Amino acid sequence: MDGTLENKNLIVRSNQDGIAVLTLNAPKSINALSEAMMASLSEELDNIAADRSIKVVILRSGGNHFCAGHNLKEMSTHRADEDGGFQYFKDLFATCSAMMLRLVRLPQPVIAEVKGIATAAGCQLVASCDLAVAAEDATFATSGVNIGLFCSTPMVALSRNVPRKMAMEMLLMGEFLPAARVAEMGLLNRVVPLSDLEKTSMDLARIIAEKSPAAVKIGKRAFYEQLEMPLEEAYAFAGRIMAENMMAKDTEAGIGAFTRKEPMPDWTGE
Amino acid sequence: MDGTLENKNLIVRSNQDGIAVLTLNAPKSINALSEAMMASLSEELDNIAADRSIKVVILRSGGNHFCAGHNLKEMSTHRADEDGGFQYFKDLFATCSAMMLRLVRLPQPVIAEVKGIATAAGCQLVASCDLAVAAEDATFATSGVNIGLFCSTPMVALSRNVPRKMAMEMLLMGEFLPAARVAEMGLLNRVVPLSDLEKTSMDLARIIAEKSPAAVKIGKRAFYEQLEMPLEEAYAFAGRIMAENMMAKDTEAGIGAFTRKEPMPDWTGE
Amino acid sequence: MDGTLENKNLIVRSNQDGIAVLTLNAPKSINALSEAMMASLSEELDNIAADRSIKVVILRSGGNHFCAGHNLKEMSTHRADEDGGFQYFKDLFATCSAMMLRLVRLPQPVIAEVKGIATAAGCQLVASCDLAVAAEDATFATSGVNIGLFCSTPMVALSRNVPRKMAMEMLLMGEFLPAARVAEMGLLNRVVPLSDLEKTSMDLARIIAEKSPAAVKIGKRAFYEQLEMPLEEAYAFAGRIMAENMMAKDTEAGIGAFTRKEPMPDWTGE
Repeated sequence: MDGTLENKNLIVRSNQDGIAVLTLNAPKSINALSEAMMASLSEELDNIAADRSIKVVILRSGGNHFCAGHNLKEMSTHRADEDGGFQYFKDLFATCSAMMLRLVRLPQPVIAEVKGIATAAGCQLVASCDLAVAAEDATFATSGVNIGLFCSTPMVALSRNVPRKMAMEMLLMGEFLPAARVAEMGLLNRVVPLSDLEKTSMDLARIIAEKSPAAVKIGKRAFYEQLEMPLEEAYAFAGRIMAENMMAKDTEAGIGAFTRKEPMPDWTGE
Repeated sequence: MDGTLENKNLIVRSNQDGIAVLTLNAPKSINALSEAMMASLSEELDNIAADRSIKVVILRSGGNHFCAGHNLKEMSTHRADEDGGFQYFKDLFATCSAMMLRLVRLPQPVIAEVKGIATAAGCQLVASCDLAVAAEDATFATSGVNIGLFCSTPMVALSRNVPRKMAMEMLLMGEFLPAARVAEMGLLNRVVPLSDLEKTSMDLARIIAEKSPAAVKIGKRAFYEQLEMPLEEAYAFAGRIMAENMMAKDTEAGIGAFTRKEPMPDWTGE
Repeated sequence: MDGTLENKNLIVRSNQDGIAVLTLNAPKSINALSEAMMASLSEELDNIAADRSIKVVILRSGGNHFCAGHNLKEMSTHRADEDGGFQYFKDLFATCSAMMLRLVRLPQPVIAEVKGIATAAGCQLVASCDLAVAAEDATFATSGVNIGLFCSTPMVALSRNVPRKMAMEMLLMGEFLPAARVAEMGLLNRVVPLSDLEKTSMDLARIIAEKSPAAVKIGKRAFYEQLEMPLEEAYAFAGRIMAENMMAKDTEAGIGAFTRKEPMPDWTGE
């Protein structure tokens, strides 16, 4: 992370070998998802969506913690609005949901890299990424219930990642759970010592970056679409997707190399 | 449990600190879900739904076992009906399903506290509660298949709690599985020695009882509703729910206390 | 397996005590799902669907591996078609999906018995079976992404069996995972030493073969149907199913025997 940028940019982006690392860069607020932070992250995701040089994204945090969720102080100032803040809150959660959907719809896979705490909308960020790795001492919560605000939008992502009794426990009790436990639930792909965290997410990213970007883009998009279909419809959909994938130049080259027992070609992304 | 009530009431209710303990009280029939038992439990749940003093429910069992499911003897007497019992059976399963849906729709969270066996509709009761704790030697089954009656209504709840190959194993094989195994599947939040069982469910209940009842009620209801929506619709729904939650007096007080680093207020439930 | 059949039949079927063992019998191609293999397996499944003497199916593999997925060489020959193979590929994936749906819709439960590798559509076969057992050294992958062809149809089955971050890891990274890991994810019911593999699947099959075939058929079909319904609709559906199940002669006999504490009757299948 470029230290000179720390006070200027809420999201710091670095690129390396087709991997974009987005670092949440507001450690003093535990990377709270303020309006400005959500706008910055959304903007960077839109940039990456259009950037064919980027094959994978790592979502990292500056400071010691991943993300503490919404910025409650900023929100509270809108209590003074004529309507008590209701319209503002509706708009804010819509903005936040749109940002979470950007992660799901981004052509490139996104890996959450979690240290310290990930709570409320911060835990939702983890659940909204395609993959997630965490340090052993990271902890996860949907703690809004403790202050009277049930984590209703975080639960949309959480309840699609873990069994429902596990989701309910997190949502109703608001306790911080260790990485090992939420990994068992299905929320994490890797749990490693903090000293290995960046290497671990980078290792996963490099493996994915070696794949055909065309295949990855087709597949990620189809994954979330077919999940919402009944089985027979999902098969009809996925069969068409796969036939289209067969027609990609990369795929023809890749299968050709495979059947001839040659190394994979350089992917063109087409 | 009040011993003098044991022979009178199929459900014994005790209240303590906003926690209602409902005890299935027909140990001689292994708490079979007879018509009378289902009527009693449904009635108590309706009472609790309207009782703002109750914040959490524990579903406990009298005797050594949780619940053996439907009362097969009572059901068999209707073989003598003109239609062989068909209409009766349809009504019975509709009544049972309505009771299970009462658990899901109850504003207050329900914790199943399981010892001994929980089988067929008894296992469905566990799956239908929001949270579940069990004694180490508790066992779980959907054993109807062993006697020619596939556990089709229990599977509705079971298959929404555990991975489908695990559900299929229980449904097709009808074997009793230990608490540790079904906990791994996702059906249980805690497995403890029998001597710690009541303390464990009460500990969970107390933690939830400390939360704002308004937030818990909003959140539990939204949880099950959003689960049945596609992702984008779920976010639109949950965003509105969360904005409405922000307008609750408890929530304003809770967030205010949090940002001022004060203790949480006494919740008013509004 | 009858050695004399090995070079003639792509699927070898043996029957024993109401259990049909279907053996994928093209070990030289790692049991690739060629057109001929899919036709043979589909035909055998159709035969079994109509065969009331068969109560359970085991899907086994000849040679050292379960199945390597589609036959890429056969597919590649259709690159020479006028349309580059597009129509052929669409038809091929439709044929494959129809075969996978045959497993789901077969009245009898199907147990996948996995040794060696199960990858791509071979992994999909495992996910499409009702139950699955594997040797300790079996490995599982959706490795199409490595050659530019994202496993879009396999993911339909996989993503309905394991948590989504686990499915995404397999699909995006294309790595071979050991049986123990995919069992934790929920894809396998048993992991045993290779020397115990056939005994293990046969033990499960025998247990299921002892049940009323009427109940098993009703239940398996209802299982997959109700999974695609909202909760309340699922209960209305399953309640009707269960009332109809009550009217089966086997069920009346079974419940009667149970309440009289007699051994289960010989099931008539009606």
